[in-house]
Order: sequence, then structure tokens, then C-alpha cells
Amino acid sequence: MEHLQQSFTVKFEYNVFFTAGLFEVGNNILANFLSQTKSAAQRKIFFVIDAGVAEAHPQLRSQIKNYFATHTAVKLVPEMLIVAGGEEVKNDTQHFDQVVEAVNTYGIDRHSYIAAIGGGSVLDMVGYAAAVSHRGIKHIRIPTTVLSQNDSGIGVKNGINYFNKKNFLGTFAPPVAVFNDELFLHTLNERDWRSGISEAIKVALIKDANFFDWIEEHTTALAQRDMMAMAELIWRCAKLHMEHIAGADPFESGSSRPLDFGHWSAHKLEYLSNFEVRHGEAVAMGIALDTVYSQLSGRLTPTDSQRVIDVLITLGFEVTHPLMQVNEGKSPLLAGLEEFREHLGGQLTIMLLSAIGMGEEVHEMDAALLEEAGHVLANKTHQQLQ
Amino acid sequence: MEHLQQSFTVKFEYNVFFTAGLFEVGNNILANFLSQTKSAAQRKIFFVIDAGVAEAHPQLRSQIKNYFATHTAVKLVPEMLIVAGGEEVKNDTQHFDQVVEAVNTYGIDRHSYIAAIGGGSVLDMVGYAAAVSHRGIKHIRIPTTVLSQNDSGIGVKNGINYFNKKNFLGTFAPPVAVFNDELFLHTLNERDWRSGISEAIKVALIKDANFFDWIEEHTTALAQRDMMAMAELIWRCAKLHMEHIAGADPFESGSSRPLDFGHWSAHKLEYLSNFEVRHGEAVAMGIALDTVYSQLSGRLTPTDSQRVIDVLITLGFEVTHPLMQVNEGKSPLLAGLEEFREHLGGQLTIMLLSAIGMGEEVHEMDAALLEEAGHVLANKTHQQLQ
Repeated sequence: MEHLQQSFTVKFEYNVFFTAGLFEVGNNILANFLSQTKSAAQRKIFFVIDAGVAEAHPQLRSQIKNYFATHTAVKLVPEMLIVAGGEEVKNDTQHFDQVVEAVNTYGIDRHSYIAAIGGGSVLDMVGYAAAVSHRGIKHIRIPTTVLSQNDSGIGVKNGINYFNKKNFLGTFAPPVAVFNDELFLHTLNERDWRSGISEAIKVALIKDANFFDWIEEHTTALAQRDMMAMAELIWRCAKLHMEHIAGADPFESGSSRPLDFGHWSAHKLEYLSNFEVRHGEAVAMGIALDTVYSQLSGRLTPTDSQRVIDVLITLGFEVTHPLMQVNEGKSPLLAGLEEFREHLGGQLTIMLLSAIGMGEEVHEMDAALLEEAGHVLANKTHQQLQ
Repeated sequence: MEHLQQSFTVKFEYNVFFTAGLFEVGNNILANFLSQTKSAAQRKIFFVIDAGVAEAHPQLRSQIKNYFATHTAVKLVPEMLIVAGGEEVKNDTQHFDQVVEAVNTYGIDRHSYIAAIGGGSVLDMVGYAAAVSHRGIKHIRIPTTVLSQNDSGIGVKNGINYFNKKNFLGTFAPPVAVFNDELFLHTLNERDWRSGISEAIKVALIKDANFFDWIEEHTTALAQRDMMAMAELIWRCAKLHMEHIAGADPFESGSSRPLDFGHWSAHKLEYLSNFEVRHGEAVAMGIALDTVYSQLSGRLTPTDSQRVIDVLITLGFEVTHPLMQVNEGKSPLLAGLEEFREHLGGQLTIMLLSAIGMGEEVHEMDAALLEEAGHVLANKTHQQLQ
């Protein structure tokens, strides 16, 4: 049969910059990036800011205005959009609509920029709106939490929730640049400081035993908000995530998602708890569940399993939640397995551990073992309280 | 300053198959394509069909059911979605919502398929919904018009209209396969048969003088609905479009859009006429306008300009429209120049002709010359009536 064959490759490149005080007028890192591209037409930059960040940094908007009064390669849109932070911004599509409307109102074209400052949820929502407006406006991410600086903010995915399903709508669309500013970490509350550490533990457990050893040695420093330790954790975690994205299947055409260790139950718990449990907290519980499951199914030694749980508890994480328990074979959590499969499509593929630093994919989960793992963890939580 | 560098390439491949009678049970072309991929999980296929096609082919749905009763590599979702054809399907977001809801209702995962049967507007809308559901469901295109078989349906773009602006929302997302079935062309009305020919004239004029010569020799055959001539026209036009996409800048990161000869005014006319003028008809008028403008600005010889106009008129196209006229320097059409620039961003870039088969980009258009070109064409239309 006659046919025409189409084949082409598209190259994607971006840098993740690490700095402190991105919008101090003397800091040229953002200005240099924006000056790299020459254009005959006036390019603009439009900012969307997480309400929590705007509140914790009341000078931020005037700092940005001062910055662009000095650095003029790109014209600042003086109006900035403040949006709710956390999962709320992904659940209610009006926030997405506001960004798309701003693109129209302020005439943001495809050579202009939409910059998002905030946690992972705000970056996900703004990234999606930028990706579909005019078939893709240049997107700059300025993540402000541990979680977004070491994981979600430096990757290639975006999305919003729909039909009560996480990231039901979204695309793969790399940003043009990411700026990790450690000053934003100082004002995080305890929960947000801690939350993002679970993604570092996750990637260490499935990919890098040395990094897990390092985390184990620095649990106290991290718990006590040592910024040097946190900066190293974020750098190493971001590097592992970025290498993974570039190395394998950036736009996830396969059925597995090897980085999503501990995530099938975490995604479901977030919904079941009405997002009272934060993503990073849910991931810590998901890691604990799949670690103990790995042990009970004979993959991981009890000693290594205990090391993981000890690190989580020392950092102050809860390692389970009543909604993560399976009782007499029943739990709303179990539907999370099918939803996880459905989102990726194809065969169910779950990452477990065969050792610290070594992941192993399986294609089914045993409800009885999940029940037992939940009970083991309920006791661990209890021990923590003693 | 410290930074991590991300860099990767993504390969995109798909075939455009040419056939007659795609859903005849004995035609294995679609079944073979669907059998190529092996999967442990049951894959599904969901069909969205242009209402005009469903009406002209009342047996289509039962044919599809028979086909998948015999060819079982992929499970047919028996419910099919019928949507309005033409620009309406891109103007009203409820159609997009219906496809996204179907993804949820029927559990269409990322290894399953959404197939769209219809004209370019239906393919654009369904392609967009598929691209953003679960961050991208495999999309099969079955274009049913000349325009979609030789241009829009075989490319990598999708989109819907928003804020009264064409393709304001959309993505670059290649289909996994395209099936051009010539049987659908037999039932096209006169306007739809003719419309798509203008995109072939366009690509010939800017890229391939031999192809324009061929079209010139076959204008009568094409006007008389000679299927052999039309099949060759579609093949050559699709090939030129696909080579262009692969060769240059598939996801259009630059400011120019070299294939959009005649399109800046065509896009605007479609809106100004409330879509009473079809895309292909508007493109014919846009080609005529920019051809005569090329002549009046000293780029193109009067003889070559006349050849283009003669081909359009012989095929039955109108070469201008009252809404395309500029009078005393004023016309709603002129706003189309800025909108065209804004959609692509950067500098205004318009393709003109320096010879038949040779495009030339310019960065400004002169309103007085556009006015004169409009008047020249108004007379050509008049001559045609004599």
C-alpha cells in the first residue's frame, strides 16, 4: 500500500540555574538569560505568582518592577496575576482561564514569556496554560518550595486536575529556563520545608545508594533547617531527576514511570484526604508503604526497610494514614492502582525496591500484603510517639 | 553561576496511508497498523465523526463495527461521538469538552486511540483534546476532505478557536497515523471539492514550479472532478507539506511560517464573514491578493500573476470578496496583519512571490498597494462574469 513516511526529531534544551536573590538588581542571571535571544519585535514577560509566596514576600512585586526597570531586554507587563497556591489552583479551572485571558489581554505572543513563581501546583497550572496558548508560549519556572526545586519544577510535565483526577489534562512541554532561588526556602513553613525531601529519598532509593547514605547522615541537619545541607540535597535530587528524564523516555511513551516509586498510593491519598495531606507528605507515606511491601514480598531486607522508615520518621514525616490502611481486603486506596494504570495506559507497572538504590518493576500488587504492610506501618507510627 | 543543563531530543514518526475503502473488512491497512504495537493490556479505539460525513455515509458506523468485529487487535468503543463539522466545532468549546469527557467515561488510556473522521476542523479539535488528555492519547486522523487530506490533516498541529481568534488554544502533537481514503471525496459537495485545491496551488507557488505547471494543465480535469487528477494533486501536495514540516522547524519556534502564503488575509476573512467563506475559499482569495500585491510591488511579472489568477478562476474560485477590499486606507482586513504577527510572535513576516515556485519573505505590507491589489481583483471577478 502506498504511503508517505514522516520522521523528524525535535531538540529540547534548558538550564536550571541556582541562585540566591534572583530579583536583586545586581543579580544578572535572569537578565543575561533574557538578553541571549535577539528579536526585532518587543518581547514581553508576564508574571503569575503563588498567593502564599506573595504574602511571605510582600516586596516581591516591587522588586520585580525595579529589576525590569534596570534590565530592559524584555518588557515587563506591570500587571501580575496572583493565584491560589497548592492543589486548589489545579482543581479549579478558573485559574487556568485567568492565565489564558491574560495572554489575550496583554498580547503575550510566542516570543514572549510567562514566568511562574510558586510551588509545584502553580507551576503545573501555569505551564499548562502557557503550553496551549498560541500552541506554546515560552515558559520560565521559578520554583519556591523544596518539592518544586528538586523535582516537579525542573521537569517537562504540566497539568491540571479534572473529573477529580490528578493531571487529567496536561502536556509534556519543557520550560525555557528554571531559576531555583534559595531565598524562597527560608520562609517555608515546617510542612513545606519537609515535604520536598521525600522526593529526594524516593530518587535515592531507586537510583543512587550513595545519595541515600548521604541523606541518612544528614537527617538531623535537614530536620534542623540547615541550608547548606538542603542546597546539596536539592542539587543532587534535581540532577538525578534531570538525568532520568533525558536518558530514557522524556515524554513517557511507555507504560512505566520508573520515577514514580511510592506514587500510586500517594496520588490516591491526596484525593481521599481532600488534599489535606500534601503531595510530599503523601509520597513519604507511599514510600513507606511500598518499602515495607518490598520487604514483606521478599525483595528487600528487614534492615534496609527499617533504615528507610527511620529516615522518614527522623525527618518528622508520618509514615501512614488511616486512609492508607486496607482492612479485610477493602480500602478506597486500592482504586488508586487502576487509576495509576489508566493514566499511563497499558499494563499496570509499579516500582518496588530490591535493595536501597535499586528499583524493580512489578505488574501486580497483592491486597493481603498491602493490608499487612499498612498494619506494620501503623505500629511504626505508634513507636514514634513513645 | 552554577547550573544544570538539560538537553534531549524526541523523535516523531508517522505514516500517511492512501487507500480506498478503509473500513471494508477485506482492507487490512488499518488492522495491520493497529496490530504493530503489542501490549499486555487491552487497548481501545474511540471514534469521533464529523456530522456531515456521518450523514453522507449512513453505513459508516455499522461498517466500523463490522470491521472491528473481524479485526480484534484493538477493542472498539461501540459508542461513537458525532460532532458538528466546519469551524463551528472549533468555536464552541462544548465539543472539546465532549471528547475529554468520553476519555474519562470510556477509560481511554494513553495506549489507546482516539480516531477522528472528518474535515480539518474536526481533526483539529479532536487532535487538541487527544493531545491534552492524560498528557497525550494516541491520535489517528482520517481526513475526509481535499483540504484535510493534502494539508491540515497530515501535519502536526491542532487547535480550537478562543476569544474569536483562530487556533488560540492548541499544541504541536503529531498523529500516530493518517489514513487518506479517497472514497470520502466522492460525496463532497462542489465547494468542499474545490476548497482544498487552493492549498495545493499555494504550496506549488512557493516551492515547486513544476507542480504549478501540472496544476495549470489539469485545471479542467480537476474542475470536472477527475479522481485520478485529484489523487495525484493530493499526493504531491501532502508530500510537499510533509517535507516542509520535517525539514525546517516542525514546532515553529521561529517567527515566520513560510507555508502560510496567502493566509494572513484568509484567516481574517473567515472571521469577518462569520465563516461563511470556507478556509480553502478564503485561501484562494488570499493567494490572489498576495499574488497581485507581489506583482504591484515589482516582485512578480504580470504574466505570472495572470497565470495564477487564471488557474483560480478556471477552478471556479472567487478571487476577492467585499470584506477583502481596502478603501481609502481603511479596512477591517488590515487588523489581520497584527493578529497574524501576534499568533506567531516576533516580527511580522509575510510570504510573497518573486516567481512562480519561489517565495520571498517581507516584514511589512503597504496599505495603498493592498488597496490597489483589491481593486485589480474586483475587476478580475467582474471579467469572469462576462
